[in-house]
Amino acid sequence: MRMSRLVAPTLREDPAEAEVASHKLMLRAGMIRKVAAGVYNLLPLGFRAITKVTQIVREEMLNSGAQEVLMPTLLPKEIWEESGRWGEYGKELFRISDRHEHEFCLGPTHEEIITSLARDAVKSYQKLPVTLFQIQTKFRDEIRPRFGVMRSREFIMKDAYSFHTSEASLDEEYKNMRAAYSRIFDRMGLNYCIQDADSGLMGGKFSEEFHVIADSGEEELANGKRGIEVGHIFKLGTKYSAKMNCVYIDEENKEQPMIMGCYGIGISRIVAAAIEQGHDKDGIIWPTALAPFKVAVVPVDSKDKEQLETAEKIYRELGSEALLDDRDLRIGVKLKDIDLIGIPVKVIVGPKGLKEGKVEVKLRKSGELSMVPINEAVNHVRNIR
Amino acid sequence: MRMSRLVAPTLREDPAEAEVASHKLMLRAGMIRKVAAGVYNLLPLGFRAITKVTQIVREEMLNSGAQEVLMPTLLPKEIWEESGRWGEYGKELFRISDRHEHEFCLGPTHEEIITSLARDAVKSYQKLPVTLFQIQTKFRDEIRPRFGVMRSREFIMKDAYSFHTSEASLDEEYKNMRAAYSRIFDRMGLNYCIQDADSGLMGGKFSEEFHVIADSGEEELANGKRGIEVGHIFKLGTKYSAKMNCVYIDEENKEQPMIMGCYGIGISRIVAAAIEQGHDKDGIIWPTALAPFKVAVVPVDSKDKEQLETAEKIYRELGSEALLDDRDLRIGVKLKDIDLIGIPVKVIVGPKGLKEGKVEVKLRKSGELSMVPINEAVNHVRNIR
Repeated sequence: MRMSRLVAPTLREDPAEAEVASHKLMLRAGMIRKVAAGVYNLLPLGFRAITKVTQIVREEMLNSGAQEVLMPTLLPKEIWEESGRWGEYGKELFRISDRHEHEFCLGPTHEEIITSLARDAVKSYQKLPVTLFQIQTKFRDEIRPRFGVMRSREFIMKDAYSFHTSEASLDEEYKNMRAAYSRIFDRMGLNYCIQDADSGLMGGKFSEEFHVIADSGEEELANGKRGIEVGHIFKLGTKYSAKMNCVYIDEENKEQPMIMGCYGIGISRIVAAAIEQGHDKDGIIWPTALAPFKVAVVPVDSKDKEQLETAEKIYRELGSEALLDDRDLRIGVKLKDIDLIGIPVKVIVGPKGLKEGKVEVKLRKSGELSMVPINEAVNHVRNIR
Repeated sequence: MRMSRLVAPTLREDPAEAEVASHKLMLRAGMIRKVAAGVYNLLPLGFRAITKVTQIVREEMLNSGAQEVLMPTLLPKEIWEESGRWGEYGKELFRISDRHEHEFCLGPTHEEIITSLARDAVKSYQKLPVTLFQIQTKFRDEIRPRFGVMRSREFIMKDAYSFHTSEASLDEEYKNMRAAYSRIFDRMGLNYCIQDADSGLMGGKFSEEFHVIADSGEEELANGKRGIEVGHIFKLGTKYSAKMNCVYIDEENKEQPMIMGCYGIGISRIVAAAIEQGHDKDGIIWPTALAPFKVAVVPVDSKDKEQLETAEKIYRELGSEALLDDRDLRIGVKLKDIDLIGIPVKVIVGPKGLKEGKVEVKLRKSGELSMVPINEAVNHVRNIR
């Protein structure tokens, strides 16, 4: 992507609406823009970061044997009444009526719908255990949305649900999901911990939370925990299946309620948490796996034909993970933007280096700088993890 | 994916709720289940077909220079009042109030939001032209939702919007998008045509529709057109930008309204349209590019060790596009399900073939059958288009 075309309206100053580092930096880097309280547009850089998170989560969920589905946002009152949560959920639930005065909520979580799906689609013990997941936009009418995508009213979640014939089978899948979550956060390059948790409105007997450690330790953000919840795994038992008559036929031809687990990951929130964990005074410091682009190729003078041609060549060879800063701006301004956006690797093409047939490769995180022969630059960058 | 684990509850009989072939077959193949009128769960096979559509659309949009964003579902009344559509749109617009009595609609289309985004993020002629797109769930409270995902109230669309400094620039991008759409529908293997269209509520001067030809020619479905609209491209001009003060600074430092185009594709609807175009009495006949899985490996007797081992080996080598029908069912029942789901290629591992070291490869569409040596089966299947 050429920076001259990229829609990433960077800001020099901290916006007044933002209190915490990740919110400030996502606005300043042109990743997001506010549409209403707790409701955001994801601009191209924001969307790409989300996509990086989504891909890792999807791959690990599929590899761990889960099947992907997509449930609706409009959830009928009748199904939520079966679990009793239509009355319990309170004002966080967005409620809406259609033209025929049928009532729906906008899905904040999907236990009821997946339970009704399993009850319809899975009849026999032979089809169990099974784990289904989706990656989807959720809605919660937070009383005080804040911190940008960290606590918004419309956000992207991965939610998974498992169905079993025994506690032992649930235990096994819980461990399987716990291991998948660890692989997910490891691959993302995040510093995280796993904590015992109480399971709140979801009910159930046992649950753990995955927290990204916020080095910034902002008290408001972390409520004294110094961590940001990005994942939550629960053993639900028969809380939903018993109420909703979600049963299977066992080996003795008897009906039994399915035993359930559920497993959430806050997709949009991970992007904010990664920024809380990785930033400095100049901007974002992405873990490479989550950076919207891995590398920016920057000619010192975009009007200099030799510099631009060399930069273009390297940029094209690097492929879709590369930005080319072809803007007609001073080098200082260009580098400030690239560092604000947090691109892990810069390849700087300048007059001094070119005389020696070299370019400068600089790492965002360590500041490490190497002079690399032009024809080795692409391989050099590819090998950076 | 193993059929023994796949959540695909197939039905032998046509469900009473469905009128047209695609709706019947998506229900019968276990691709979708109804949650409410015009609101569906996408089960694993349905979700995979949608993903095939999404990937082709995304690739071609990115290749044609568009940038991907994600706008919200909750759209504030105030922005819709700027264009005048809050009052105009009528009952198809789902309207909702939050806990503070602020009014929103659930986005049926995003002209207002993208225009407000462009007005905020793009200030100068130097950043134009630009095309932004998103792939997102949309909401329309249809008075009579029908035909399954063909005319539902919650559905997935790709919507793109372009911004220009001149009519000539808009013309160029309109042609660019028209060509991208043709590549998209060509890659999908669909038989389609392009028709002049009037542009309805969107306004604008010129528009064309892409129609998938429904061979079935069901009158109800096609309203006498014998075609199903799956894409629509518009020249909007300054309809939205003038009302919403979406301006850029031109080369003479003067404010000018941006000239706009918009370009939609009905993602979920394409899946239904492909089925209307491709089916027979036994079930779905997918174009290979949209099939949820390309190939099913079917041992005639899942309890026969040699058959199952041979099938497993071929299945594993084929990778993520393969199903293994490891269910302990009669071969006739298994093949009926595979044909109903519409898998383009079957690899049947039976006792007669094994004696000669061969498996049977059968094509869903033509019925063509070949006996292929076991160790050539994987390459043989990979070369089928």
